[in-house]
Amino acid sequence: MPSLKDVAELAGVGVGTVSRVINSHPNVKVNTREKVNAAIKQLNYIPNEVARNFKMQKSKMVALLLPSIWHPFFSELAYYIEEELDQEGYKLMLCNSGGRPDKELNYLDMLNQNKVAGIIGITYNDIEDKVNTDIPIISIDRHFGKDITCVTSDNYRGGRIAVNELIKAGAESVAYLGITSSVYSEVELRKKGFIEEANDQQVEYLIYEENDAVFDVDTYFENFFKLNEQHDVSGIFANTDLLAAQYIDKAKQYGIRIPEDVKVIGYDGIQQNKLFHPILSTIRQPVEEMARISVKLLLRKVEGEKLEEKIYRIPVLYRDGETT
Amino acid sequence: MPSLKDVAELAGVGVGTVSRVINSHPNVKVNTREKVNAAIKQLNYIPNEVARNFKMQKSKMVALLLPSIWHPFFSELAYYIEEELDQEGYKLMLCNSGGRPDKELNYLDMLNQNKVAGIIGITYNDIEDKVNTDIPIISIDRHFGKDITCVTSDNYRGGRIAVNELIKAGAESVAYLGITSSVYSEVELRKKGFIEEANDQQVEYLIYEENDAVFDVDTYFENFFKLNEQHDVSGIFANTDLLAAQYIDKAKQYGIRIPEDVKVIGYDGIQQNKLFHPILSTIRQPVEEMARISVKLLLRKVEGEKLEEKIYRIPVLYRDGETT
Repeated sequence: MPSLKDVAELAGVGVGTVSRVINSHPNVKVNTREKVNAAIKQLNYIPNEVARNFKMQKSKMVALLLPSIWHPFFSELAYYIEEELDQEGYKLMLCNSGGRPDKELNYLDMLNQNKVAGIIGITYNDIEDKVNTDIPIISIDRHFGKDITCVTSDNYRGGRIAVNELIKAGAESVAYLGITSSVYSEVELRKKGFIEEANDQQVEYLIYEENDAVFDVDTYFENFFKLNEQHDVSGIFANTDLLAAQYIDKAKQYGIRIPEDVKVIGYDGIQQNKLFHPILSTIRQPVEEMARISVKLLLRKVEGEKLEEKIYRIPVLYRDGETT
Repeated sequence: MPSLKDVAELAGVGVGTVSRVINSHPNVKVNTREKVNAAIKQLNYIPNEVARNFKMQKSKMVALLLPSIWHPFFSELAYYIEEELDQEGYKLMLCNSGGRPDKELNYLDMLNQNKVAGIIGITYNDIEDKVNTDIPIISIDRHFGKDITCVTSDNYRGGRIAVNELIKAGAESVAYLGITSSVYSEVELRKKGFIEEANDQQVEYLIYEENDAVFDVDTYFENFFKLNEQHDVSGIFANTDLLAAQYIDKAKQYGIRIPEDVKVIGYDGIQQNKLFHPILSTIRQPVEEMARISVKLLLRKVEGEKLEEKIYRIPVLYRDGETT
């Protein structure tokens, strides 16, 4: 098997230079780089790193499983995760699991076979039976039954803040709009915070939810507006920004003015600029921090460390828009 | 070195079952899967695929270089590229190059060293000197000077369609708003199509551009509105949706009504739903098709095929919104 020295000799450079090319050091002349790469190819030389990974079965790659990279929340998350991994010398492998269990299981197998060093994932499948304690996986938002470390925004505080801000904006009776999932998720805490704050503040409230398996946007809101006739809600906390925007769109058809008649707060903070309206008032997920902390925790797990916590909850902030 | 047979014996299953686990076949019981993975770990067995890649220096991984996955156009593109690669048995490695040449060069080195099978990239750096003919790279939008295959939307037709639609909507004099880059890109053809259609239709037109190195949104539009006092433009073609939205935002401050006073058409089609306004009239990039074709062409290059064309231009469609 050819050695680093063989490559250096063929390329007519020093061993250090070959190493710099392999490790992508910026200070290598284009010419030199080309000569070294040509020598690597000619000798069919396997760079140290690959050889080392091969022997030690350690990969410098982390898989990110997302339902869909197309969604603005997930693409922002992926942006910061890649940035943080890059700083630590890791590459990112991206998978849109799209809720497909076979795709998710595929990555678990890759992890078991050491083709990836770890997984950061948002998964809505019930794959927890296949996951062992202390395996290098970090779950975002989704709360596993077993000992999977979870990084999430402080959903409970978010629910409390939302009620508070709705009341401050003048709402006298509030409603929580949600879409539930069959798997337990930390998102449920948005509702819990909402209820407890409404109770503390002694305002009337309404909980309106439907399961994602049967969710149809038209039926959902028709039923809600029927229900609302007896309640006269003047403040809405929708558990995602998308749902908040859908409510506002439907409310228009009923002649409801936002924010004059009803104040609306969403959750996520997906809007990137102020060019498209309505600019939602929202509980902003600390996406950058969630991404960086997830990577840091994952790499500690990769190194075999035991983590102190099972759930890391990152503080949220309220962002004022045009809907309160 | 342990063999597949050793793993099968230790796990107490057949060789076919081990192979199914390694290749993530869905029809394997959870129990069996766990037993096989445990045996792989215990024996430190290197799955065939890894061993094969190691020997043949072939990777089943494709790198995608994007300026930022956070941008809605790029995240849609990444979504479809991952889907298409998955169907072909390839994994996606994602890199936000953010215009950083060192990061882009790093991936070129990985390609030269066969750590990835190919690269699909949108790069705004001038890295063409480092790129050889027939190397498995597909460029999207960006047109390399050398023999890099490029997949792009039909920018020229897009420019022509825009002028046509503006006139149909009642515009009598049109302007092209653009931001130019120091590297030549296919995007320039949007302007060319615009000019030639305006000439054919014998309408007055204005070209207004600034370089991205000095672009400042406030100055850009202040100067444009000053210029416009002598021209009285009633139709705008902005060469991206973002620029169109920025124009509309600024126009409001000048008391210009869209679309009553000025009709506006953008380029990209980044809006995913009809919940946020204005819904832009736009030339929609055929993102899904561009993604799938890029993958297909790249894999043909990986197999050593020579491609017929250097540039593949995919037809665009006009999408009517609220701004014309």
